[in-house]
Amino acid sequence: MRRGFGSDNHSGVSPEVLQAIAEANTGHALAYGDDEYTQRFVQAVHDHFGADASPYLVFNGTGANTLCIDAMCRSHEAVVCAETAHINVDECGAPQRLVGCRLLTVSTPDGKLTPELARTQLHGFGFQHHSQPRAISITQPTELGTVYRIEEIRALADLAHEHGMFLHIDGARLANAAVALQCPMRALTTDAGADCLSLGGTKNGLLSGECAIILNPVLDRQLSYRRKQMAQLGSKMRFTAVQMECYLNSGLWQRNASRSNAMAQLLHESVRSLPGLRVAYPVEANSVFARLPRRVWKQLQQEWFFYDWDETADVVRWMCSFDTTPDDIGQFTERLRALLIQN
Amino acid sequence: MRRGFGSDNHSGVSPEVLQAIAEANTGHALAYGDDEYTQRFVQAVHDHFGADASPYLVFNGTGANTLCIDAMCRSHEAVVCAETAHINVDECGAPQRLVGCRLLTVSTPDGKLTPELARTQLHGFGFQHHSQPRAISITQPTELGTVYRIEEIRALADLAHEHGMFLHIDGARLANAAVALQCPMRALTTDAGADCLSLGGTKNGLLSGECAIILNPVLDRQLSYRRKQMAQLGSKMRFTAVQMECYLNSGLWQRNASRSNAMAQLLHESVRSLPGLRVAYPVEANSVFARLPRRVWKQLQQEWFFYDWDETADVVRWMCSFDTTPDDIGQFTERLRALLIQN
Amino acid sequence: MRRGFGSDNHSGVSPEVLQAIAEANTGHALAYGDDEYTQRFVQAVHDHFGADASPYLVFNGTGANTLCIDAMCRSHEAVVCAETAHINVDECGAPQRLVGCRLLTVSTPDGKLTPELARTQLHGFGFQHHSQPRAISITQPTELGTVYRIEEIRALADLAHEHGMFLHIDGARLANAAVALQCPMRALTTDAGADCLSLGGTKNGLLSGECAIILNPVLDRQLSYRRKQMAQLGSKMRFTAVQMECYLNSGLWQRNASRSNAMAQLLHESVRSLPGLRVAYPVEANSVFARLPRRVWKQLQQEWFFYDWDETADVVRWMCSFDTTPDDIGQFTERLRALLIQN
Amino acid sequence: MRRGFGSDNHSGVSPEVLQAIAEANTGHALAYGDDEYTQRFVQAVHDHFGADASPYLVFNGTGANTLCIDAMCRSHEAVVCAETAHINVDECGAPQRLVGCRLLTVSTPDGKLTPELARTQLHGFGFQHHSQPRAISITQPTELGTVYRIEEIRALADLAHEHGMFLHIDGARLANAAVALQCPMRALTTDAGADCLSLGGTKNGLLSGECAIILNPVLDRQLSYRRKQMAQLGSKMRFTAVQMECYLNSGLWQRNASRSNAMAQLLHESVRSLPGLRVAYPVEANSVFARLPRRVWKQLQQEWFFYDWDETADVVRWMCSFDTTPDDIGQFTERLRALLIQN
Repeated sequence: MRRGFGSDNHSGVSPEVLQAIAEANTGHALAYGDDEYTQRFVQAVHDHFGADASPYLVFNGTGANTLCIDAMCRSHEAVVCAETAHINVDECGAPQRLVGCRLLTVSTPDGKLTPELARTQLHGFGFQHHSQPRAISITQPTELGTVYRIEEIRALADLAHEHGMFLHIDGARLANAAVALQCPMRALTTDAGADCLSLGGTKNGLLSGECAIILNPVLDRQLSYRRKQMAQLGSKMRFTAVQMECYLNSGLWQRNASRSNAMAQLLHESVRSLPGLRVAYPVEANSVFARLPRRVWKQLQQEWFFYDWDETADVVRWMCSFDTTPDDIGQFTERLRALLIQN
Repeated sequence: MRRGFGSDNHSGVSPEVLQAIAEANTGHALAYGDDEYTQRFVQAVHDHFGADASPYLVFNGTGANTLCIDAMCRSHEAVVCAETAHINVDECGAPQRLVGCRLLTVSTPDGKLTPELARTQLHGFGFQHHSQPRAISITQPTELGTVYRIEEIRALADLAHEHGMFLHIDGARLANAAVALQCPMRALTTDAGADCLSLGGTKNGLLSGECAIILNPVLDRQLSYRRKQMAQLGSKMRFTAVQMECYLNSGLWQRNASRSNAMAQLLHESVRSLPGLRVAYPVEANSVFARLPRRVWKQLQQEWFFYDWDETADVVRWMCSFDTTPDDIGQFTERLRALLIQN
Repeated sequence: MRRGFGSDNHSGVSPEVLQAIAEANTGHALAYGDDEYTQRFVQAVHDHFGADASPYLVFNGTGANTLCIDAMCRSHEAVVCAETAHINVDECGAPQRLVGCRLLTVSTPDGKLTPELARTQLHGFGFQHHSQPRAISITQPTELGTVYRIEEIRALADLAHEHGMFLHIDGARLANAAVALQCPMRALTTDAGADCLSLGGTKNGLLSGECAIILNPVLDRQLSYRRKQMAQLGSKMRFTAVQMECYLNSGLWQRNASRSNAMAQLLHESVRSLPGLRVAYPVEANSVFARLPRRVWKQLQQEWFFYDWDETADVVRWMCSFDTTPDDIGQFTERLRALLIQN
Repeated sequence: MRRGFGSDNHSGVSPEVLQAIAEANTGHALAYGDDEYTQRFVQAVHDHFGADASPYLVFNGTGANTLCIDAMCRSHEAVVCAETAHINVDECGAPQRLVGCRLLTVSTPDGKLTPELARTQLHGFGFQHHSQPRAISITQPTELGTVYRIEEIRALADLAHEHGMFLHIDGARLANAAVALQCPMRALTTDAGADCLSLGGTKNGLLSGECAIILNPVLDRQLSYRRKQMAQLGSKMRFTAVQMECYLNSGLWQRNASRSNAMAQLLHESVRSLPGLRVAYPVEANSVFARLPRRVWKQLQQEWFFYDWDETADVVRWMCSFDTTPDDIGQFTERLRALLIQN
C-alpha cells in the first residue's frame, strides 16, 4: 500500500515493542493478568498516573471507552460530550448497546468542550423522565487535532464534580497532547481532576494495547467482572502488558509522539501559505485539517492516501504518524502545491 | 512462574508466529481489515472452510462466541448448550448482556450434547412466553476433553435444521479435535453442517487471534456493524490476520495440536494405572481429568500449577500445551506417583 | 387538585370507557389477547388503518415507541428524529437501553422534521463505524403542538423508503392531528406511507391503552415475543382492548379530540392579543405555547397548574384536555390578563 | 368463552375495584404518581409491609420482577432460582434482555428452593469469569401451588444475607399464600427478611396493578429512573394506585384469596380419590396439579378450559379463581369422574 496521511493506525509497530514481546515469550505465565508482566505494567501505571490509578487492559479504544463509561454511568444516566466525539460518531453505537445510556452532545467550534458548552446539558436533575447527566467525556487531543490546556481540563473536572458527576478523558492519543504541552501525562489526567482515562498506545507504535485507567477509586468497583462480560479480557495478557509497560517505561510514548507532532508542524508550515488552501483548526497535535478545492484533493488522493473529513465542506484530514518522514512531507506538499497552482 | 498443566493459554507464542508479525511490520496498511494481509487470511479461510466461509477476526473467544450467537439469535431466542459449556459457565454472562438471550442448558455425562439431550429443550415453539430455541451450540473438543465424531456433529446439525435452528461450534481448540480425528477442520464444521464457528488460535500457539466464521451465508448479515458495536474490531488488523494466516497455511495448527494431544496421551498412559487415581473422562484431545485424593492434589499443586475442576468431587484438570515436553510429563508423574503411594 | 393546563393526562376517563370496561367484566376470558374483545379491537384497527395493520397493545407510550423502534431497527442502526422528540427527551433513555440503538437528532424550528432536515443525518451508509440510519420518527402532532400536513408526512415516508428506511409516527395524540386536519387517522398514517405507528388513547380519555401498530407487514416479525420480553404484554388484555375498541368505534377519539382542540383555539384567541405575551408556535392541536414575563407565569402557577417548557426562554405550555371547559379558559385568561396588566 | 380452570387471570374484576376506579375519576390529578391516590396507596403499603417499604407501581408481573432484579443485580451478577420459576420459564428472557444478568437455576421436587438447593449455586465468588450470585428469588406460592412456611423464607433470607446477597419474593399470588398460612402478608415478606417483593393483584381481582416493593432501603436507589427507562411508568397512575389501595385496605386481597384457596381445597377433596388420578403436589394455595390419563384430560378439555402443565408426564393444572363457584367444581368433577370411570 502506498504511504499516506490516512491515520496513525496505518503505521506499524515500533521495533522496541516487538522486542519486548519476544522477550516476554518465555516459559509459562498465568493468563488473564495474574502474571509478572502485568504486575510490572501496573507499577508503571502507578509511576505515571499515581498510586491510586487502577488499570484494566482491554483490546481497543472502543473497549476502553465503553468500560470507562460503564464505570461511571448506569443505563439511566448520560454522558455529556462534543458532537464530534469518537464515542458519539465512530463507535457504531457501542455505548448505547453495551451500557444502554444516552450521550448528550454539544456542538463545538473546534472539538473542545468548555464549561459553558457542557452546562447547556446539565439540567433535568431529579426529573425521572430525563436521563441523568453523570459524566463529561472529552477527547485529548480532540478529533479535530486541538489540545485542551491543563486549566481547561481542570475547569471541566470541577464542573463535573460540582454536579456529582465524573470526568472521563478519551486519551487514544494522549501522548501527543502531553508532548504538545510539554508536560507529563499525569498533569493532564490525574492531576487535572480526571476520574478515568482511556489510554491508547496502538496509534502511537504499539501492536495492540489500550487501557481503561480508573483514577478515582470510587469508580473501581466490580470492573474486572464487567470487563470480562464485555468480552474485553485477554488470556495471554502478558503480551499486551509488556507492550504497554515498554511504552510507558522506555519513553517510547514520548519519542513517537514527538515525531508525529513534529511532522504535523512541518506539514502545517509547508501548506499554510499555499494558495487556495485554508487550515481549518489550530495544529496542536499530529493532524492537519485543511479546506481546499475538491478537484485538488480528489486528485491528490490518487497518489496519497488520506480521508476527506467533511465532504460537504471540502475539509480533509492529514494525520501524521510516528513513522512519517520529512521526505513524505516534502513529496506530498510539492505535489499538493503543483495541483493547487494548476487548478 | 513454574511450569505446569494449568491451561494451554499459559504457554507462549510459536516462533513462526512472531516471525510472521515481524514480516508484516513494514510500511503502511489500511486499518480495520482493508489490508492485503487480511485478504490473504480470508483466502486461507476459504481454502480451509470453503468458499462460503465468511470470517470476522475478533479479540478473544468470548468475542467470537458472542458474535456467533448474535448472528444466530435475537434476544427473544435461545441457545441450547451443555451445562458445562464455556458460554454458560466461563463468560460472566456475556451472551446475556451482549445479546440479551437465554441459554437453555442440558446436563451431560461427558460434556457432549446429543440429539436426545438437546431435544429436551426443543419445545415451546410459537408460545410467546417462551424464549424460542434458535441455536444449538457445542464445544469441540468439549470442556471435558471429549471429542465429537463427525457423525455426531452431523446429527446435531440435522436436528437444528429440522427445527429451523442453527448449529454453532465453539472451536477454541478445534485443531486438537481435528488432529484427534485425523481429519481436516472442514470435515468437522462446514462439511458436518455447522452454520457458524468460533475458531481459536490463542490456545494453540498464537499471540492473539480468534475468529467468528459464518459458514451459512444466511447468517452473514450486518455482522461488520455488530462486531464494531460490540467493540471487537481491531484497528491494526494486519497483525492478527497474519498470525491466523500463518496458523492455517503453514500447518502450525496441526503441528502444535499434534504435540499437545500427544502429550495428553502420554500423560494419560503414565497416570492411568496409578493407585488411587481414576481418569474421569475419555482422553481424546489435550487434557486429562483425574479424580484423586485431595491431600495428594493439594500437595502436587505446591510444585506444579494446575486447576481443580470440581473441588467437591476431587476432580482436577491437567491441560497439555504445544510446549509441554515429555520431560514435564516424566517429572510430574513421578512426583504424582510418589505422593499417591505415600498417601 | 386544582384544575389546570398541565397535561392532557391529568384529566380522567370518559364515561363511555368505564362503561365499556364494566360491560367486558363478565365471565372468563383467555388472557394475553386470545379473547373476543381483542379480536374486535383488531377488527376496529383494520377498519381504521387498513387490513394489513397489525396492532400490539402495550401499556404506555414509551412501550409503544420502543416496540416500534425495535420492529424497525437493530442495535447498530439508528433513528432520525427531532431534537425535541419525546423518544429523545422524555423517555429516560428507553430506546438506548431497550433497543440499544442511537437516535440521530436534528434541531427544528417548530418540532417538525422536513426532508431537508432529515437528510442531514442520512450519511455514513455502509461505513462500519457509523450507526446505520434505518428509521425516521416523527411525532404527530409534535411536542410543540404543530401538525404535519399529509403531504409533509408523505414526503418523509418517500425519503425514508428511498434509503431503505422506515417511517414511524409517534401518535400519542394522533386523534388531535386528525381532527385538526379534518381527515381520518388513516390518511395521516397508512395512506401517507408510514410503516408503523404508536397510537395513543390515554391522553384522550382512556383509562389506559396504547398500541404499537405495524402498517408495513415486513416489520411484523417476532413482535409478540419481543413485546413479552420487553414486559409489555398484559394478562387481562380484554380490558385494554375494549377501551381501545370503544375509542375507535364509538367516535370517542374524534369527540374528545375535537373538544380539546377547540379549547386550545379558544385559549389562543383569548390570549393572543394580551400585552406582553407572544404565542410561540402555531396553535394547531390542543396546546398553546406562550412567551411571557417570568413574574407573571410564576404567579399564575400559584393558582393554575401548568408547566414551564423552557425556563431559560420564559416559554410555558398550556395543554387543553377533553374535559377542559370554556369556563376554565375564561377564568384562566381573566387572571392572566390581570397579571399581565399589573406587571 | 366457557368457564374453566385455565388461570386466575381469566377471571374478571371485583366490583369494588371498578367502583374505586369510578370514584377516582373526578377532576384533574397529576400524572406519574404525584397524586393523592398514589399517596394513599403508599400509606397502605407502609401499613401492610412496614414504614421502610418503598413501592413502585408497574404494569405487570414481568415488570415487577425485572425491576426487582434490576434493583438487586447488575448485569455481571446472577439470580439463584428454581428451574420452574416464572422469571426463568415464562418471561421470554425478560431478565436477560432488560437486566442482562444470568439466572442460576436449581431443580426442585416441588417448586420450592431450600438453603441446601440454593447453596449448590453459591460458588465462584470473586472469580472474574463467573457471574456473581447476588440474589435468591422465590415464588410464593410457587408455580406448583406449594407454599413456603415463614421459617423456610427466613432460612433463605439468612442464607442470602450471609453471602452479601438479597432475597426477592415473586408474590404474583402472595395473598393466596398469606391466606393459606393465616398470617398477614408482612409476616411472609418484611418480617421474614425479604429484601424486595413483586406484589401482584391482577390474578386476584384487580383490573391491572402490580407493584415492585423495595423492603431493604439499600436497594431503593435510582429506581424511579429505571422504572421509567424500562417503560413501566404509567401516566394516569391514580387509577392503578386506587385499585391497589382498595385491594390492601378493604380486605379484598384476603376475601378473594380465601375464595380461590377454598375452591382449590374443594376441588382437591372432590378429585383426590378418583380412580386413575393422582394429585401431583400438595394443594396449599389455589391450584391443583393432577396426573391422569391423557385420553381423559384431552376429552375434558373439550368442555372445560385448562392447561396441560407437563404433557410428557400427563400432568395438568387446574387453577381456581376468586370467582370460581362450588357449582363449577361440582359440574367439573362430575364430568371428570364419568370420564375416568368409562376410560
